[in-house]
Amino acid sequence: MSSIKSLDREEPNYFGAGPALLPTSVLQEAAYDLIKYEQSTVGIGEISHRSKPAIKVIDDTKSNLIKLLDIPDTHEVFFMQGGGTTGFSSIVYNLIGNYAKRNNGKIGKAAYAITGSWSKKSAQEAQRLGFNVDIVVDTKDLKYGDIPPYSQWKSISKDTAYLYVCDNETVHGIEYKDIPTSDYLPEGVELVADMSSNILSKKVDVSKYGVIFAGAQKNIGIAGLTIYIIKKSLIEQPTDDELKSYGIPLVPIAFHFPTVIANNSAYNTIPIFACHILKLVTAKLLENGGIKQIQAIDEEKSKILYEALSKYPTFYHLPVTNPKYRSNMNVVFTLPKELEDKFIKESTEKNLIGLKGHRSVGGMRASIYNAVSLDSVKKLVEFVNEFATNNA
Amino acid sequence: MSSIKSLDREEPNYFGAGPALLPTSVLQEAAYDLIKYEQSTVGIGEISHRSKPAIKVIDDTKSNLIKLLDIPDTHEVFFMQGGGTTGFSSIVYNLIGNYAKRNNGKIGKAAYAITGSWSKKSAQEAQRLGFNVDIVVDTKDLKYGDIPPYSQWKSISKDTAYLYVCDNETVHGIEYKDIPTSDYLPEGVELVADMSSNILSKKVDVSKYGVIFAGAQKNIGIAGLTIYIIKKSLIEQPTDDELKSYGIPLVPIAFHFPTVIANNSAYNTIPIFACHILKLVTAKLLENGGIKQIQAIDEEKSKILYEALSKYPTFYHLPVTNPKYRSNMNVVFTLPKELEDKFIKESTEKNLIGLKGHRSVGGMRASIYNAVSLDSVKKLVEFVNEFATNNA
Ligand SMILES: Cc1ncc(COP(=O)(O)O)c(C=O)c1O
Ligand SMILES: Cc1ncc(COP(=O)(O)O)c(C=O)c1O
Repeated sequence: MSSIKSLDREEPNYFGAGPALLPTSVLQEAAYDLIKYEQSTVGIGEISHRSKPAIKVIDDTKSNLIKLLDIPDTHEVFFMQGGGTTGFSSIVYNLIGNYAKRNNGKIGKAAYAITGSWSKKSAQEAQRLGFNVDIVVDTKDLKYGDIPPYSQWKSISKDTAYLYVCDNETVHGIEYKDIPTSDYLPEGVELVADMSSNILSKKVDVSKYGVIFAGAQKNIGIAGLTIYIIKKSLIEQPTDDELKSYGIPLVPIAFHFPTVIANNSAYNTIPIFACHILKLVTAKLLENGGIKQIQAIDEEKSKILYEALSKYPTFYHLPVTNPKYRSNMNVVFTLPKELEDKFIKESTEKNLIGLKGHRSVGGMRASIYNAVSLDSVKKLVEFVNEFATNNA
Repeated sequence: MSSIKSLDREEPNYFGAGPALLPTSVLQEAAYDLIKYEQSTVGIGEISHRSKPAIKVIDDTKSNLIKLLDIPDTHEVFFMQGGGTTGFSSIVYNLIGNYAKRNNGKIGKAAYAITGSWSKKSAQEAQRLGFNVDIVVDTKDLKYGDIPPYSQWKSISKDTAYLYVCDNETVHGIEYKDIPTSDYLPEGVELVADMSSNILSKKVDVSKYGVIFAGAQKNIGIAGLTIYIIKKSLIEQPTDDELKSYGIPLVPIAFHFPTVIANNSAYNTIPIFACHILKLVTAKLLENGGIKQIQAIDEEKSKILYEALSKYPTFYHLPVTNPKYRSNMNVVFTLPKELEDKFIKESTEKNLIGLKGHRSVGGMRASIYNAVSLDSVKKLVEFVNEFATNNA
């Protein structure tokens, strides 16, 4: 197998926030498939998106996701281009359209919980596009370091189409650990969650969600595809003429959910190479024991890292003050400002790469997505200890 | 170099319409880069889109395109997700917005020339989104087999923002060979061209265009990125509030040209692997002599293929009746219906792959994009001769 050797790499200790690490074995398989795919004379990126092997890639990816997340029959899985950001846009158009369809043209409100920069961006986009946005909580004054109980959120009016949350805030490192019950969420108001940076890291009760969406480029693949899981009752849209008469803006056709779904995610050319990587990543997860297994590892990884950081409370600071909500994926911390460069320099020398925090918040961030091994995290823990000991 | 061997393939004779053939050497380089990119410890798909190497990929791709197409300083190059179809949408929003910006809030008309299924889809999308569309020519009655002279097109009113053409109709195999002069196109009306299936196949005077756009997955790369070349004076947009007050719908933020351009095509995560392939393909073209060289080869390829088909006028039929407008990229032809399966079967046996016409028009289509070698086309010519001789 000298052939595989040539595509080898030293296992990286890579903590980048996204695009992020992928399993080496997946990349190796994808590399070969790029040149020649199965029985084709050409590679996976060169085949028609309407050919049988391409359709099989789409179907297999869907089926892997259905198995991994135990997605019930009430929900549909599909893929679109445009990243998480286009999710911000496409969701508000489509869900407000669908609400109008189900409510005689009534224009529903869109409730947003702002717990960090990504939910904020999403709310801003809905507002910008002209929709009626209701901010039910904004943890800015808590510096996005905690999430107050639902009982303290602004109450949601019944004419609201959905409540939007970002399940894991990639920049601020804050992650929900539960979802609102009927005490808070009125019946008929759908829960929408951005899981771009924590999908497939934990068990999720999909039946509780109206929509789950996630850009692929953190836990599941390379940039270029976004995964959507939608309750089937939320797909249907008014006709274009109806939308116009209601005063609801139309979504560009490539992001019109019923059109995309009716065409099995290939209304227009789907980036099939990106989908193929999703397929390989999800297949590998299934092979390795599914969500239960990966969740256990992910929890262990974040546990040892937070424990190490917490050992030096006067040196490392954890901006997510409520431990309950600390992200299992993006471990955000700071250290004395004047030592930041040194931390980066010395960690890089030890081949611990990608630890700089997001430019908007500074500090450090260790993103420990599914593909980051426990071993890598252990190395990081060792460095965290060492650095504090030497510099505190 | 046994390592390269393992990623080898027999040179395909592949005539798929898109996604389409790419140079084997490009795919091989990309395959290695997928595992480990330059000095990084990880692959090109795993690095941050804001990292130096990612920015260099974007910049190099732009600079290659500028060199290849001799793009003047008056124009800007950028990339977005969403495919050609999202180009249909994003262009109308942005150009009508820009027209309003330059004309005190006036809502311009959008003129469309329909010469095949792709220009038709684009016009339909502009209409669907609620814009004021003027169809200046529709060659449906000519079965999309000819393009009447501009003098016979409906005249364009001065309050028109742009004239939209599909420079090469991938399904119908019809390609423009000239562009309207000031006799037809009023001053100030911008020319917009979809070059999804013929970009980089011929010299183009970019200065004459307001916008050129092209999905990557035919001549330049894999699906997932669309290239835009825009006259700088067309970038600026009214504020969102102004747009609302004019009654112009807002484009989703990921497709708002000024935002994307201000962020060097990385407002949100750019699919950097797809961009990397663009970079490699364009670098290879430059190495091989640039557009002049590839245009000569492309012309030779289509010449010998059309000549072969024309030798058997009672057997092969060319639906593009005016030879002048026959596409150099998509050679569309039919043969007796009852022999179609046989043609596909026997060509496939000779490893000539991907010749079936688009499902909407039937017949055959040989897409002979840049990556399809003269040698492959010669093999196809031989088969075309043989098949006619044996079956006519
Ligand atoms: C939670 C979350 N949502 C949305 C996005 C935006 O994704 P994209 O860059 O693909 O538009 C990101 C990007 O990092 C993210 O972390
Ligand atoms: C000329 C032309 N324009 C636009 C498109 C649509 O591109 P996409 O499928 O990337 O949306 C195609 C696709 O084949 C095309 O050939």
